[in-house]
Amino acid sequence: MINGPETSSPALLPMGFVDLLPAEAEAEARGLAEVMEVFSCHGYERVRPPLLEFEGSLLSGAGEALADQSFRLLDPASHRMMALRPDMTTQIARIAAVRMQDCPRPLRLSYAGDCVVIGTPGREGQRQIAQAGIELIGPDKAEADAEVIALGAEALARLGIANVSFDLSMPVMVWSLIDGSFSGIERESIIHALDRRDAAAVREYGGAWAELLLGMMEAVGPAASALEKLEKLDFPAMLKPHVARLRADVAAILARLPGARLTVDPVDFRGWRYHTGVCVTVFAMHSREELGRGGRYLAGDEPACGLTLNPQAFLRVAAKPKRRKRCLVPSVMVQKDLSSLHEAGYATIASLGLSGEMEQEAHHLRCSHIWKDGKPVALAR
Amino acid sequence: MINGPETSSPALLPMGFVDLLPAEAEAEARGLAEVMEVFSCHGYERVRPPLLEFEGSLLSGAGEALADQSFRLLDPASHRMMALRPDMTTQIARIAAVRMQDCPRPLRLSYAGDCVVIGTPGREGQRQIAQAGIELIGPDKAEADAEVIALGAEALARLGIANVSFDLSMPVMVWSLIDGSFSGIERESIIHALDRRDAAAVREYGGAWAELLLGMMEAVGPAASALEKLEKLDFPAMLKPHVARLRADVAAILARLPGARLTVDPVDFRGWRYHTGVCVTVFAMHSREELGRGGRYLAGDEPACGLTLNPQAFLRVAAKPKRRKRCLVPSVMVQKDLSSLHEAGYATIASLGLSGEMEQEAHHLRCSHIWKDGKPVALAR
Repeated sequence: MINGPETSSPALLPMGFVDLLPAEAEAEARGLAEVMEVFSCHGYERVRPPLLEFEGSLLSGAGEALADQSFRLLDPASHRMMALRPDMTTQIARIAAVRMQDCPRPLRLSYAGDCVVIGTPGREGQRQIAQAGIELIGPDKAEADAEVIALGAEALARLGIANVSFDLSMPVMVWSLIDGSFSGIERESIIHALDRRDAAAVREYGGAWAELLLGMMEAVGPAASALEKLEKLDFPAMLKPHVARLRADVAAILARLPGARLTVDPVDFRGWRYHTGVCVTVFAMHSREELGRGGRYLAGDEPACGLTLNPQAFLRVAAKPKRRKRCLVPSVMVQKDLSSLHEAGYATIASLGLSGEMEQEAHHLRCSHIWKDGKPVALAR
Repeated sequence: MINGPETSSPALLPMGFVDLLPAEAEAEARGLAEVMEVFSCHGYERVRPPLLEFEGSLLSGAGEALADQSFRLLDPASHRMMALRPDMTTQIARIAAVRMQDCPRPLRLSYAGDCVVIGTPGREGQRQIAQAGIELIGPDKAEADAEVIALGAEALARLGIANVSFDLSMPVMVWSLIDGSFSGIERESIIHALDRRDAAAVREYGGAWAELLLGMMEAVGPAASALEKLEKLDFPAMLKPHVARLRADVAAILARLPGARLTVDPVDFRGWRYHTGVCVTVFAMHSREELGRGGRYLAGDEPACGLTLNPQAFLRVAAKPKRRKRCLVPSVMVQKDLSSLHEAGYATIASLGLSGEMEQEAHHLRCSHIWKDGKPVALAR
């Protein structure tokens, strides 16, 4: 293992941008490949949009929410502004709506790539964010929501991450109450109160919806009990379909993933502005690290549901991949012998005859084996 | 096959940036994975530098030659200028010199990622360029040059590209003649003359080196005959080691790759400004498409030799990967059955019960099979 710590030297790299050294880089690449393979097995076809686009297309629709987070660049060819993508969902929606408009629905697409965000000056996290995700475009059904969530779980399980929980929410419920009944300072006050889960403030600023909002706040918890509590609340007619859909989503997820750990938070609404239905955040059970997020939205004018996994997060909790044993070999060797070593799980390190004796060179180059008399021989430690 | 043409709509994307649709995106990802696996088998360990860095580190040293081609961005956190990487070699050199300075040499590193160049306004080619490559850092030997070139050939062969040729050059020879003997307008004239392979102009502007340069021009061709012609030329002492090294490189490459198609062009010098030894361009034999390039340079103050393959180019000539058969299945199905279908090479497409009968839905979704009575059944066409 030759990797150092994952943190980068601030003198060398801008904050939030890091080098991944061999162990991490290999783990990230293998993790991405495993996850994409799971998606492929379920008929999700990979698309690869570019790293940057005109800001007009990249930061419109669902992308508008991330406009403040996007680096802009002038295109000297067109004299138009471009933006580095802060997220890939808008791009997939564009591809579905334009390039693949004639493909049958449901359209199942997968993607993997890097995104770049500006971050918050003074307290940057990662600013280059790897994403691997899926979008299921066309059907607006609980079974479609459940498929996307179930595949996220399967992808994480493939990486050795079995202990995950799914936090479900339906932010459109809170937003439609707020948008329909509050404005100006009252709107700010109730948003702030809900955001802090401040029951007293919700009672003070919630107006006609205070009781309902407090009831929704109290419902937070495991899916079964949360749904039971929501059942008893007096929702206005416009919200009833959302409550019913949340119930149907939970049932559909449990049908595909018996025993899945589902929690429901009916007042989780911040950071979900363009979503039109169920939203999900995937957490590692023990670390509570966020492994991915997704939800239902409109891709152009088509219903869609997507989920994005964050490889930077999930590789911290996933099982590290096995590395090849290293065998020092002569620099010129017949291909058949090399191939059989590779098939047997060895990496072959060609001796360039630099440090005298081969055994010494093998130790120097962290090799565990040496090619001798036509076979790999383990070195004494 | 649901992919459209690879060209992008200019109204949607900036020139030189494209979407890859399923067939291409899948081919690129699999090709990259295959190539990186070959590198890994030979002990090259993957590193993953960030997409952008401070321009001072990214565009210094070997990166200076690409400064004009780099998009710049202001970092609001540090108020320093950053640049999108136009190439990854400088980054790998930085990682070797700083982050991995204590790792034993030879240091073998591999990388894969996207680079972005400004292009030439009015006649852009691709501006987002995928790279997959290796760097062998430490030894300055013909065997090291040969290893890098041989692995390029092995990686391409893995993709089904066996008919390649390697064009070798030693640009430092021409550059040291020019740098040592010409300046001002005379320098421009001889560079221009050599660049056009204009024998009359080389004779006119070549001064004391005219005969030698003409002899080098005439030597262009298959490696054996080129070396024979070079042997007869009267090189100054400072160039003799380079001629000898070129000969040693050819011998070392042929020892590792018997029968390799090698050509030598001793006056190929443009576009190779920071290289200190042998340079190589890899071509597909029939299309003459450039598949990769590399050469010897200094990584900081360490000798290094690298090779970068261009997936966008090599995927046009490589065998297309096989795609999974598609089997329509119920949306809820036991995991064991799903897994056995995946292992048998099927992608499973969950029926979301949208278009009536399952057989009809299967046709609609381009499925070749349907799950029936506990097994995949081929659909009548």
